[in-house]
Amino acid sequence: MSGKESLLKNLPFFEHLSDDEKKQADSYSSVREYKKGSLIHSGGSECLGMIMLISGEIRTYILSEEGREITLFRLYPKDTCVLSASCVISQITFDTHMTAEADCSVLVLSSGFFSALCEKNIYARCYMYELLTERFSSVMWTMQQILFKGFDRRLAAFLISEYERTGLKQIKMTHEQIAQHTSSAREVVARMLKRFAADGLVEVKRGLITLKDTDALKRMI
Amino acid sequence: MSGKESLLKNLPFFEHLSDDEKKQADSYSSVREYKKGSLIHSGGSECLGMIMLISGEIRTYILSEEGREITLFRLYPKDTCVLSASCVISQITFDTHMTAEADCSVLVLSSGFFSALCEKNIYARCYMYELLTERFSSVMWTMQQILFKGFDRRLAAFLISEYERTGLKQIKMTHEQIAQHTSSAREVVARMLKRFAADGLVEVKRGLITLKDTDALKRMI
Repeated sequence: MSGKESLLKNLPFFEHLSDDEKKQADSYSSVREYKKGSLIHSGGSECLGMIMLISGEIRTYILSEEGREITLFRLYPKDTCVLSASCVISQITFDTHMTAEADCSVLVLSSGFFSALCEKNIYARCYMYELLTERFSSVMWTMQQILFKGFDRRLAAFLISEYERTGLKQIKMTHEQIAQHTSSAREVVARMLKRFAADGLVEVKRGLITLKDTDALKRMI
Repeated sequence: MSGKESLLKNLPFFEHLSDDEKKQADSYSSVREYKKGSLIHSGGSECLGMIMLISGEIRTYILSEEGREITLFRLYPKDTCVLSASCVISQITFDTHMTAEADCSVLVLSSGFFSALCEKNIYARCYMYELLTERFSSVMWTMQQILFKGFDRRLAAFLISEYERTGLKQIKMTHEQIAQHTSSAREVVARMLKRFAADGLVEVKRGLITLKDTDALKRMI
């Protein structure tokens, strides 16, 4: 069994493919390497296909005409994504962009094959929509934080004010305490700090928050 | 054939139901009436089920802790929606609210039945996720307008400035002209005006925009 074959078996709908479809999946898939920082998928310009991350990290974001970016979600090893095949999904009418946040190895099912498969095979189609529903939820969470609370800004403002007050880049506070200071909830603080950490703004270790990029945090306020 | 039975036949997955499932769909569905302004679905508090609008109009929105509302989309006759069954869809982790914008008649498939059906029947399940993917797209469009452009505010500000400049609630301008004034695109202006019209803020008829609620427009700025 080739390495690619064993990767394909990780696709949740693989067991529902006919023998022919399994063979085609093998023919129309490939493993691609992306260097850190490179663009993997970009709006309507190309149509990669369905991807499964083997190693590395991918950031998915939307881009305004003025160049402002909003991170929607991140992909980690074993995660699959079909927004990179959005050109063949008629229900997806918005553009997303994906960049490699680290050197990435990615299994790609070509968009043509994936599209034809989803048309014929209800299990593949159902999986595709299910995956998009999950993304819907994570995107809604992000959006609500930004739209309603401007909580990303509030938290950044609080961290910077602490830094300026104490002169220290290390902040020793529980999520509960920060929630009280920022009129938020412990769970929201925890999730946003995780997001800040993923974006390289802070590091969170054993209850200690270390500011890694105060300039970026100041720009958010 | 009862009226309800003929309504159930409009469900896109109806032909893929077994005879038993069809009988159950009949048993576990009902037609409900909602007066204009009444709450049909509210966050995590209740779990109505899958709905199909027979007549009237439903507005779906998210609500901040401070009470701010953002309209996500509207439902019109024959539209179906499963966000009203979100409690039985594990992938949906956000809360939405639905109110009747006019007197509504709604076919409801109970959440218990709908959940069990989606578990057993891949066609029903696939339809549910497909519908959510469509909502994902419409929500993304709304979000991008608000997040990136604050275009709802810019357009409201422009309409009010015209009103104050001329003293007239009627604005005779093409979408193209408004796009130029607001640094936007004709298509974006057209969609946002349609949204303003649905929200009762303006009326658009034969190229003439009539401001219907200047107070609400001013509050948006």
